[in-house]
Amino acid sequence: MKKLILFSMLFFPLVALSLEANAQARARDYGVSPGVMAPGNWNAITDVKGVMVGHISLVEGDNIRTGATAILPHGGNIFQQKVPGAVYIGNGFGKLAGSSQVQELGNIETPIVLTNTLNIAEGIIGSVEYTLSEPGNEQVKSVNALVGETNDGYLNDIRQRSLRPSHIRQAIVQAKSGPVEEGNIGAGTGTVCFGFKGGIGTASRVLPKQLGGYTVGALVQSNFGGVLQIDGRALGEELGQYAFHQQLESADGSCMIIIATDAPLGARNLERMAKRAMLGLAKTGGIASNGSGDYVIAFSTAESMRIPYSLSSDELLTQDQVANDHMSGLFMATIEATEEAIINSLFAAEDMTGFQGNKVRALPVETLYPKP
Amino acid sequence: MKKLILFSMLFFPLVALSLEANAQARARDYGVSPGVMAPGNWNAITDVKGVMVGHISLVEGDNIRTGATAILPHGGNIFQQKVPGAVYIGNGFGKLAGSSQVQELGNIETPIVLTNTLNIAEGIIGSVEYTLSEPGNEQVKSVNALVGETNDGYLNDIRQRSLRPSHIRQAIVQAKSGPVEEGNIGAGTGTVCFGFKGGIGTASRVLPKQLGGYTVGALVQSNFGGVLQIDGRALGEELGQYAFHQQLESADGSCMIIIATDAPLGARNLERMAKRAMLGLAKTGGIASNGSGDYVIAFSTAESMRIPYSLSSDELLTQDQVANDHMSGLFMATIEATEEAIINSLFAAEDMTGFQGNKVRALPVETLYPKP
Amino acid sequence: MKKLILFSMLFFPLVALSLEANAQARARDYGVSPGVMAPGNWNAITDVKGVMVGHISLVEGDNIRTGATAILPHGGNIFQQKVPGAVYIGNGFGKLAGSSQVQELGNIETPIVLTNTLNIAEGIIGSVEYTLSEPGNEQVKSVNALVGETNDGYLNDIRQRSLRPSHIRQAIVQAKSGPVEEGNIGAGTGTVCFGFKGGIGTASRVLPKQLGGYTVGALVQSNFGGVLQIDGRALGEELGQYAFHQQLESADGSCMIIIATDAPLGARNLERMAKRAMLGLAKTGGIASNGSGDYVIAFSTAESMRIPYSLSSDELLTQDQVANDHMSGLFMATIEATEEAIINSLFAAEDMTGFQGNKVRALPVETLYPKP
Amino acid sequence: MKKLILFSMLFFPLVALSLEANAQARARDYGVSPGVMAPGNWNAITDVKGVMVGHISLVEGDNIRTGATAILPHGGNIFQQKVPGAVYIGNGFGKLAGSSQVQELGNIETPIVLTNTLNIAEGIIGSVEYTLSEPGNEQVKSVNALVGETNDGYLNDIRQRSLRPSHIRQAIVQAKSGPVEEGNIGAGTGTVCFGFKGGIGTASRVLPKQLGGYTVGALVQSNFGGVLQIDGRALGEELGQYAFHQQLESADGSCMIIIATDAPLGARNLERMAKRAMLGLAKTGGIASNGSGDYVIAFSTAESMRIPYSLSSDELLTQDQVANDHMSGLFMATIEATEEAIINSLFAAEDMTGFQGNKVRALPVETLYPKP
Repeated sequence: MKKLILFSMLFFPLVALSLEANAQARARDYGVSPGVMAPGNWNAITDVKGVMVGHISLVEGDNIRTGATAILPHGGNIFQQKVPGAVYIGNGFGKLAGSSQVQELGNIETPIVLTNTLNIAEGIIGSVEYTLSEPGNEQVKSVNALVGETNDGYLNDIRQRSLRPSHIRQAIVQAKSGPVEEGNIGAGTGTVCFGFKGGIGTASRVLPKQLGGYTVGALVQSNFGGVLQIDGRALGEELGQYAFHQQLESADGSCMIIIATDAPLGARNLERMAKRAMLGLAKTGGIASNGSGDYVIAFSTAESMRIPYSLSSDELLTQDQVANDHMSGLFMATIEATEEAIINSLFAAEDMTGFQGNKVRALPVETLYPKP
Repeated sequence: MKKLILFSMLFFPLVALSLEANAQARARDYGVSPGVMAPGNWNAITDVKGVMVGHISLVEGDNIRTGATAILPHGGNIFQQKVPGAVYIGNGFGKLAGSSQVQELGNIETPIVLTNTLNIAEGIIGSVEYTLSEPGNEQVKSVNALVGETNDGYLNDIRQRSLRPSHIRQAIVQAKSGPVEEGNIGAGTGTVCFGFKGGIGTASRVLPKQLGGYTVGALVQSNFGGVLQIDGRALGEELGQYAFHQQLESADGSCMIIIATDAPLGARNLERMAKRAMLGLAKTGGIASNGSGDYVIAFSTAESMRIPYSLSSDELLTQDQVANDHMSGLFMATIEATEEAIINSLFAAEDMTGFQGNKVRALPVETLYPKP
Repeated sequence: MKKLILFSMLFFPLVALSLEANAQARARDYGVSPGVMAPGNWNAITDVKGVMVGHISLVEGDNIRTGATAILPHGGNIFQQKVPGAVYIGNGFGKLAGSSQVQELGNIETPIVLTNTLNIAEGIIGSVEYTLSEPGNEQVKSVNALVGETNDGYLNDIRQRSLRPSHIRQAIVQAKSGPVEEGNIGAGTGTVCFGFKGGIGTASRVLPKQLGGYTVGALVQSNFGGVLQIDGRALGEELGQYAFHQQLESADGSCMIIIATDAPLGARNLERMAKRAMLGLAKTGGIASNGSGDYVIAFSTAESMRIPYSLSSDELLTQDQVANDHMSGLFMATIEATEEAIINSLFAAEDMTGFQGNKVRALPVETLYPKP
Repeated sequence: MKKLILFSMLFFPLVALSLEANAQARARDYGVSPGVMAPGNWNAITDVKGVMVGHISLVEGDNIRTGATAILPHGGNIFQQKVPGAVYIGNGFGKLAGSSQVQELGNIETPIVLTNTLNIAEGIIGSVEYTLSEPGNEQVKSVNALVGETNDGYLNDIRQRSLRPSHIRQAIVQAKSGPVEEGNIGAGTGTVCFGFKGGIGTASRVLPKQLGGYTVGALVQSNFGGVLQIDGRALGEELGQYAFHQQLESADGSCMIIIATDAPLGARNLERMAKRAMLGLAKTGGIASNGSGDYVIAFSTAESMRIPYSLSSDELLTQDQVANDHMSGLFMATIEATEEAIINSLFAAEDMTGFQGNKVRALPVETLYPKP
């Protein structure tokens, strides 16, 4: 029961075979290591100290294949101790709730929740209820839930809107640091990427000392298309499976990308980092098609940059931060971590059959990258 | 209690007691007529042909003072016949759901819903359910609900999140053309503006023939502050009631503004019109304070500009439209209609007591503008 | 001709005839004092400590009526000690050079130069030459000149492109603190506003102690139209002179607005302040017509926020700043200062005859505001 | 010295020594053909019917290595027959003049000019003078010159600001259709890319019939860094030459990208196309470093979409265009053409020695891609 968590809110029996997290395929196990920078300890967004991730997966009967993933910038009361944050929109055919307030105020005050397109509202309710009920928030009357989505409607009977607010709260409270489960899990349960099974993926980079030594982590919900390229290898062409070719009518789909860093950054430079995540997506062959909701959310966990909910009028906000001139290393780390996170989502995902019998096969990793 | 409509949350048969729209105070009845252009027939957003407005108000016990307002660009299936649309953000401390997709694709595919800050999710569910169940939408798997809010937490026990999705659907299906009820109604039930009771307000302008003869309508949910000025009269100063002065600690609050026009316009020029609505707000003394969620949504009802849900790849989208050079009259009409809509919201609103016994008095219209 | 300074294009020894600044008409002298906050010492942008303003005016023969105005955030080497800065575009039918770099990097590294539409390039050259030749800048190879304009082509034979780079440098080096000349001077020499003679105007506000005690200054180059309103008085209607009415065919024109403050602010909150300047413009009756280039440039002079040209990679940038929650007072001050700066430009301007015999009369201040 | 054209600054009669365009190395000659779509006839931006390109190169003495490149959307009077256009800013550390007006009005009214950072003003003057003197423009008083740059200060003594407005006019009037010279030419004369000699590059794609059959062309001025990847091959790592590694201290630099298409598109969808060009840049290993000025300018040459300078108020602007849903093929073509244009710039460039004896070697194409 380690990776897949099955429930009903009412009753829905189980799926979710026991799967040890370390049993999941990851790109580096097959010699695929995009970029030139080194990953962190778990090669995951949780390498950024304090970040926690929680999944809830809903696999029920023949038709329900969905879930939610929560990313917490820190383990405290996020509303009371907001973090600097930014949203960059690669392509806006999506429903990310909460983006405009983040863009205006430059901060994030709730867990970030990812789910499916038609469960955005339940995501908001779950996040709002969680926040209103946190100790210390008894007087709070305004909560900016930040809830993103991609459309899992090929494998999931999305019109059922199966997730309940309680699922969302569960994903939030279960969030933890350490290794992150990838593939068909949480918000990635039913997603499709480059015509293969997509899902959740993560990766990280640690900057060399002379570039600041900061850590950058990425987490993606991959659900998009284009012409697949894995660390330079033209797999889409090799396999004859790419956008506008044969069976793949379109490249539509979406990618939610979360970028975390411990570098002390304000919203402006976080937005610039977020923008670079799309360059990482590009390296996998993504084209940000018309139908894509490609949103990047970036935040800094630096404790010095926390934004307290209330501050007296004679206090300034501490915002000492990395200067523009020293951002390029963080940009490069963002690109690399995002590229590898997407690849990891493909390596970890497994074949799935879902709504109306639709089947999506996993990337044939063992065939494409045979062990010597 | 003429304008207030009572519901219980579970059973709400009683709706819309007979209400003579013309019984409400309107600025022009008191000689207040901002601007130089002429209003339309009802001096309302519904003067733009096809536009319909529906309210649902929830006034329950001592503490619940809230509601929702739905604005429909036309009476058909909006998802199948989208309208060109735009969102401009005057200040983004707000939760408007759906804004990024409108900005990316330049169209609106659902009714516009306004409500309170913590009922955004119910607004989305109501709008999504309405859309999924419309005949012809059986295969639809992605709906961009456009749901805005302001915070009525002073008069309403907002943490109760009292509105249900069914209330939202009701506001949508009840929408109608003709005169629009203003003041303490719908999404304006519990709002406060310049320290007086705010609410829903509307107005319109008809351009002279030589400027195109188009109609522009505005509808606002007024809930903001500053230094009140009514058609040039410095009422805030006159009454000693303005931001940062005496009892008014802040100017926070928000204003949702909807702009409709029958001019054939694409998203770029609609966004430019939306931007001008903030100039109308400015003329009433609004300052778009830090805590404001000032969002403007603009759309064109021109039938020639409708965007069908699907179009074959060899068909172009018809988009013949007003040229940039002829936009200025529409800008001026937008400013005037917004200014008057806000003033109308103040004239129509009535004293209210709500949450925790909080009281907000209406603008003392009869005293300030005595009938001769 | 007291305020006009004549040059030949080749020799221009004669400069700055003695001009008593206090001889110019200012709105407050006539009892016009928009808003509720108090102005600073000179009621000018130079009330923000360190800010300096320089004008160069070119009035030559029958047809040349133009000039330039330089605004310096401080008296040191601006390139080496950049200031946080932002640009907000009210309407972008204009040629502001340098805007995108300010928006990306959040800083300003040169004097701000205002001039006429077809002399932008000379403005850039003047600013670049000035910067390259500053002691300490010997190795500089990239300079972001920030040069704005409005179109004075009604009174000025603008196609002559009369200004030389040397004029621009002269405006820069002549910049000084203290009272600022207004009206037909510098970049305002040939501008027209609401059908009256426009020009340079300035004003300031000092926040009360409990709102931080900061100073906000505005300087405008007024050259736009609409329906004139002076501190609430509907002068456009009163005089029958407004956009789309009788002789005024359009409301086109532009307004450049510079906002300075000593509050410690980063680029994001400076951009929000800049945005509020358009609300001040709205209160004068401006409509941001299609043909307007309405650009607002805002900067902070706080010494703690200076951005040194180079910083070692292990140093953070000091950016302690006013929190979002305490910005509203600064917003209100921006609105008031901008409104009054525009009105001051009209009060100070004088009748002018120029290109092709075109005449523009000044606002008849003495008639409209008779001394008791 | 085949590709370099020498001038003196005062007399420059000698131009364009005989240059066989087909003598230049192009990626496809070496089997490098990124993407899955087919190029047009010349695999150049000029495959988009009507588009013309002109170069002026300035190679003088030891220190001057610069130039300019002009791209014309059509051969007529561009000011009188504007084209729909858009600007997307990948990273804004650059000086693109004219961007905000293009973004506001959605059109381009002048030739696009590329040059070096400190010659932007001369670029503007050249473009303005050209426009003012075009027959039919005698009354024009406002011209939005669109002039971009990258910094060639490593090979060129950029502080000399060697280009004159006459050079710019010459680049404009010499523009022609057909094959485009690449590498060390025009605005690419002195640029550096991934530590190799960069320059001008171009490429095109033709969409298959079922995707509309449109042509998309790209032209780049490559002057940026990162970790070079050529059609998937990790050349940066292979050669040990990449950002933050050994001799390459930074990845700074810039890339100007021009995208042309004959698809009938308005500004909104052109901006979306422009945004995708950055995905093409990403595939070559670019990281859009802090110091980059990465601007993308896109326009449509479709005659049906031309925007006449003046239109009577009762005429609508014809804007029938490709619907959102059919944009993805154009996005993919943009990515592919941009990627290949950058690679072509590297293949065509040759070793250069310039300012202060600085040397930059060309990509060793013959070694890396040996002919069989």
